[in-house]
Amino acid sequence: MKAGFLQFNPQFGKVRENVETAIKLIKSSTAKLLVLPELFNTGYLFLNRKEVEELAEEVPGGETCKKFESLAREKKIFIVGGLAEKDGGKLYNSSFLVGPDGYIGRYRKIHLFNEEKLNFNPGDESPPVFDTKEAKIGIMICFDWFFPETARILALKGADIICHPSNLVLPHAPSAMVTRSLENRVFSITANRIGKEERGGKTLSYIGQSQILDTKGTLLIRGKPDEETLGEAEIDPASARNKRLLEHNDLLKDRRTELYGELLK
Amino acid sequence: MKAGFLQFNPQFGKVRENVETAIKLIKSSTAKLLVLPELFNTGYLFLNRKEVEELAEEVPGGETCKKFESLAREKKIFIVGGLAEKDGGKLYNSSFLVGPDGYIGRYRKIHLFNEEKLNFNPGDESPPVFDTKEAKIGIMICFDWFFPETARILALKGADIICHPSNLVLPHAPSAMVTRSLENRVFSITANRIGKEERGGKTLSYIGQSQILDTKGTLLIRGKPDEETLGEAEIDPASARNKRLLEHNDLLKDRRTELYGELLK
Repeated sequence: MKAGFLQFNPQFGKVRENVETAIKLIKSSTAKLLVLPELFNTGYLFLNRKEVEELAEEVPGGETCKKFESLAREKKIFIVGGLAEKDGGKLYNSSFLVGPDGYIGRYRKIHLFNEEKLNFNPGDESPPVFDTKEAKIGIMICFDWFFPETARILALKGADIICHPSNLVLPHAPSAMVTRSLENRVFSITANRIGKEERGGKTLSYIGQSQILDTKGTLLIRGKPDEETLGEAEIDPASARNKRLLEHNDLLKDRRTELYGELLK
Repeated sequence: MKAGFLQFNPQFGKVRENVETAIKLIKSSTAKLLVLPELFNTGYLFLNRKEVEELAEEVPGGETCKKFESLAREKKIFIVGGLAEKDGGKLYNSSFLVGPDGYIGRYRKIHLFNEEKLNFNPGDESPPVFDTKEAKIGIMICFDWFFPETARILALKGADIICHPSNLVLPHAPSAMVTRSLENRVFSITANRIGKEERGGKTLSYIGQSQILDTKGTLLIRGKPDEETLGEAEIDPASARNKRLLEHNDLLKDRRTELYGELLK
């Protein structure tokens, strides 16, 4: 199966333009699974919760999700993308998954990064894995990478591929994701944005370097730090179900869960 | 505090010579904490359990542990080193910690690598952290690095420094340990051996590259792949107790343990 990421530079608040950019890139791809960045339709640098409220949409009922649902049906592909989600009075930093048969599910980011804590509610469900015909697709968002628990939970739930919409600003994630793929023997697709946002006296620069890794942590493709990129690679999702590292080692069965109680403290 | 690793080439079965090499290296150091490789006194490539039985020693009662206990008292330093431990009919791939006041404790490797499973019993206690006056010292051994749970448990138990005696053969550990230090905001000292062992038709080549990382995953010193090395760096163990990454992020407090139940499956 061909999988890919879309690395581009969303413009803050210009939802229509950002969605058009993403749709254009998707239409130019022949991949079966495509991953868009975190908050790809709105931009990232919200200055307060009110700004999020104004741009947040319902999932799956909102305009953005519906557009990508149609596109996924039309192209018979899977799309993962990040957006600000509203649900009653709650606001989440979420990602949707849509596929050939329409809306599949969403994930609400559980590890919020810095000032996101002021503007979003933290997700209150464990990261999900969606069992589609083509692959078991897990989702985590950006800063979730810093917590080994996130990718581990996705692997334990059976993910073949970790889709990782991101707006990375710290330099470490591209190499740390190698560790995440390696330790869990899963594919990972990090779709990061590029560009710089300057709003209300604040500046954030995004590091690009979106990438696809195989189950051994091998880099299949990586975008540049600052170039719009549709990156694609051929992967075999089912190969992630074999966790055997060596004759006597299976990476999930070798876990000593009876000794791991400390992890819930 | 100055901390260090001893990277050298233990000769299989030559316990007296290996211990002498280690003692000579330690005597040339001014570090307060020194880490020796895994199974540094015996070599690694045991062909069967009987060979382990013949070379395994009691901890702390055996000859090797006693020698390093004396040395630690004499030099008023801490030493972590790996050896084959016997306890009744059980054989463990263990590491001891000795200090200025003598024997402090030991760790029995819980994630055995490949054929170690045929020759050793797996440890049945969670990886320990020893609260000494100078630092909170955690221990894990070699392949434990592959399981994010190990370093995480040590961090949750309060480790400032993860001491990591190793006989690494896979290429990934030096960079994966960067992720371990970074995600847990702890110092790590990986003491790896060098050289090649050929026994009974089997060959293992060790990758050296012992290293000391700070709490941000920055490399303070790394040995070459094939050179005997005493590597030292100045570290401030107590700085590892500050887990604040950004104004609103604390790497341990931000964990969503209420959502992590899957980790014990």
